[in-house]
Amino acid sequence: MRFSPLVEQLMDAFRVLPGVGPKTAQRMAMHLLERERPGGQRLAEVILQAIEEVGYCQRCRTLTEAEVCMLCESPRRDDSLLCVVESPADQLAIEEAGGFKGRYFVLHGHLSPLDGVGPESIGLDLLEARVAEGLIEEVVLATNPTIEGEATAHYIASLLSEHGVKLSRLAYGVPMGGELEYVDGGTLSRAFNGRLPFASE
Amino acid sequence: MRFSPLVEQLMDAFRVLPGVGPKTAQRMAMHLLERERPGGQRLAEVILQAIEEVGYCQRCRTLTEAEVCMLCESPRRDDSLLCVVESPADQLAIEEAGGFKGRYFVLHGHLSPLDGVGPESIGLDLLEARVAEGLIEEVVLATNPTIEGEATAHYIASLLSEHGVKLSRLAYGVPMGGELEYVDGGTLSRAFNGRLPFASE
Repeated sequence: MRFSPLVEQLMDAFRVLPGVGPKTAQRMAMHLLERERPGGQRLAEVILQAIEEVGYCQRCRTLTEAEVCMLCESPRRDDSLLCVVESPADQLAIEEAGGFKGRYFVLHGHLSPLDGVGPESIGLDLLEARVAEGLIEEVVLATNPTIEGEATAHYIASLLSEHGVKLSRLAYGVPMGGELEYVDGGTLSRAFNGRLPFASE
Repeated sequence: MRFSPLVEQLMDAFRVLPGVGPKTAQRMAMHLLERERPGGQRLAEVILQAIEEVGYCQRCRTLTEAEVCMLCESPRRDDSLLCVVESPADQLAIEEAGGFKGRYFVLHGHLSPLDGVGPESIGLDLLEARVAEGLIEEVVLATNPTIEGEATAHYIASLLSEHGVKLSRLAYGVPMGGELEYVDGGTLSRAFNGRLPFASE
């Protein structure tokens, strides 16, 4: 026995969500049908509306249903600083950490020639045009510290080199609050090489 | 900064799913908008269709979009055995364990007078009418081994006592493959009291 065809389809459909296997999908379908039909209705309607209306900000390419996102519209950000990230989630993480008051540019991925992801797929033409406007003084390349992220940062650096902007990259090192025992070797040796004079505050 | 209003609404809407907190909801919304719009569209459509069409089987009350579910329709089940469960998920678990070849009755919950869940809310009028048809010889009360499940089983037992059917309950004991060290005391003493003669096979 399995459930009825439509209930089975519902379980299958939940598998599209990240980290949702067969057991979780079953639990979600049951919960929705048994106890949360109004919430399920609302979820479905918001999904359809978001898929229809949410696109990329025309200036920074973050996800938004507006033409230009709130952060690009804000008059309280520093136009001379631009932080390039791979995803809206990375952008949010940096915003929540606080401290950075410039603008953003979201790639929605990284260069991956084998998968057909070239410079235009990640909006580098738009990024170059943005830098060519002349307001930006420093571009922080905050792509992920992975092979693909590094390669993308290098590509962007050479692309922007002729525009006379300062280019920077996030510092590498041991994560705050972590235990050295669990930090990988690559990170540890980066942290050793980049060691700083001890400052007693 | 947060995301745009519509993206925020999408994240909030995902919180309706069981076990989905703010971080997971964000990951789901991002995944859907960044990489899975067709799958998201399908998920939303199936949710709406299921909420609209899935109701209770007229005979056993399990979830189905048909009037009578496939299992109630099946001619290959034993009409003399009826297993009463709290949820369709419990029914599926018993089916997947194999061995039981009778019919089911799904309560969709347990008696909970303080929450206004009385006998009719869990379909006991339908259950009594079903037993009164006279085909059923044994009712297996497979409600959960919780206080509420036990109370519900006792209530059903007294309700059906005048119909002359045999009533049974799932055996209590240590779970197969578990380690005694981690079995709770209530279960252990039940298993001791219900100990069986050792049969070397």
